[in-house]
Parts: sequence; C-alpha cells; structure tokens
Amino acid sequence: MKKILIALTSVCALGVALPAAAQFQKPEDAINYRQSVMTVMATHFGRVAAMAQGKVPFDAKAAADNAAIASAMSKLPWTAFGAGTDMAVPNRAKPEIWKDAAKFKESADSMVAEVAKLDAAAKAGNPDQIKAAVGAVGKTCKGCHDNFRSEKAN
Amino acid sequence: MKKILIALTSVCALGVALPAAAQFQKPEDAINYRQSVMTVMATHFGRVAAMAQGKVPFDAKAAADNAAIASAMSKLPWTAFGAGTDMAVPNRAKPEIWKDAAKFKESADSMVAEVAKLDAAAKAGNPDQIKAAVGAVGKTCKGCHDNFRSEKAN
Repeated sequence: MKKILIALTSVCALGVALPAAAQFQKPEDAINYRQSVMTVMATHFGRVAAMAQGKVPFDAKAAADNAAIASAMSKLPWTAFGAGTDMAVPNRAKPEIWKDAAKFKESADSMVAEVAKLDAAAKAGNPDQIKAAVGAVGKTCKGCHDNFRSEKAN
Repeated sequence: MKKILIALTSVCALGVALPAAAQFQKPEDAINYRQSVMTVMATHFGRVAAMAQGKVPFDAKAAADNAAIASAMSKLPWTAFGAGTDMAVPNRAKPEIWKDAAKFKESADSMVAEVAKLDAAAKAGNPDQIKAAVGAVGKTCKGCHDNFRSEKAN
C-alpha cells in the first residue's frame, strides 16, 4: 500500500511538473527567461521603491502602473527553475534551490504575496501603505537572494 | 517666430522624452531591460503560436494567459530605446531605429495593435481567430526585425 501511494505521489508530482518543464525546449531558454522576468520585475519595482524612498516625486499613476507590472512578473519565473536548469549557461542559481525546494517555494510564495500587497497599496494610491509594502517586498528579495543566489555566476 | 516654434517644439519633445529616458540610470540598463521584455514576450507569444501551429494541443486558458502576458509586454520596451542606448553593450539594435524613428514607431505600434488583437481572440477562446492573429503578429515581428535588428550584435 505504501509503495502504491509513493508511486501515485510520484506520478502526480510528475503530472504537475511536466507541463512547466516542457514549456522550455532547452535549459538555457529557462535560465534566460527567468533572468529576463527578474530584470523586468526589478526595473518596475525599483521605480516604485524610488518613490517610496523619496528619490523621485510620488506619482500615483506611475506607482500603480509599475506595481501592477511587478506583480504580474512575480508569478512567472518559478516554472523556469525546473530540474536540469542549474548549469546550462553561467547563472547565479545556488544548488539549494533544488536541494531545499520546499524552502525555495516558501520564499517565492512570500515574495509573490508581498508584491501583491504592494500592488493593492499602489492601486489604492496610499503613499504610506506603498512605503511599508516596498520595505516588505525588499526583505523578501534579500531573503531569497541571500539563501538562493550566488554572488558570482557558476 | 519660426525659431520660437522650433525651440518650443524641441522643449516639448524633450519634455516627453525625458521621463522615459530618466527611467534608466545607464544605457546598459535600458538595453538589458528591452532585451528582457522581448524575451518574456517571445516566450509567451511562442506558446500561443505553438498551439496555433498545431505543435501542442489547444488549451483555451493557457492561450488566454500567455496572450495576456505577451500583450502587456508589447507595450513596455519602447521607452528603453532612448538616445544613447545604441552601443553601450553589444546588442542588435540597428542605427535605423534612431535614424528613422517615425518608421520604427509605426512598426512598434503595429506590433502592439496586432498583439492586442491576439489577446482579444485568446480571451474569446476562438482557435481560428487566434491562428489568424498569431500569423499577423508574426508578420509584425519579422517586419520590424528585418528593418531594425541586425543579424549579429554590434
């Protein structure tokens, strides 16, 4: 019975994992994609953060537009961390992403949730809420990068 | 009077151009950003195109989700083609982008419009409309790349 359960669990896990992995023809496509998503996300998050930090004047529409793009991007990169996408081209993904997949997923989910809060705050146009949310997002960026991103590419 | 008009036009043009250019601290940031947007857009457009070409089974939800991301991305890269972003790091932008800015804008607008039609067709879940829209988008990609993208990086 236990063996059947394990087999079923494996099949189910495969069923969930396959479509995501199959979305990229080569590991380097997945790496290029996830790096690109991070660049787009960081660019737009950075524009809201610059307002929150008083580096540029607050602009409610720009904050909402940029936060919306950051939020849409936050959901995308995770399917591109499939098995075998660690080393195809130089990149900064640590082996811990695959060794401690549960912790990585928890970190990813936490970032997505905080960026969604930033999106909501920006839609509401509340500078204080935006400032708080930017700080919370920044912590999830740093936390995940500290644990799962190398200083230098492999 | 003519000189004043020219001066005013220049100031206005500058007023429109500055915020976009100021969004990137360095030319390489703009280049990295626009390349990243294109990668994300191409990845998601490619998934809808694969369905339209019968390479993968049609999936209405996946088509709608991917077309929506492609459409959001299609609007983003244009502010990253500011003056001085032609050569900072190796890239495939042809000088014609800046020499014939009106034609480049026309090509860009055409692509954005066709991707919006694809987005609408995918939301409606109509495979025939999606197929036609994929073909139209593909033509705008090719047209713009033929005129404004080099085979090799500079």
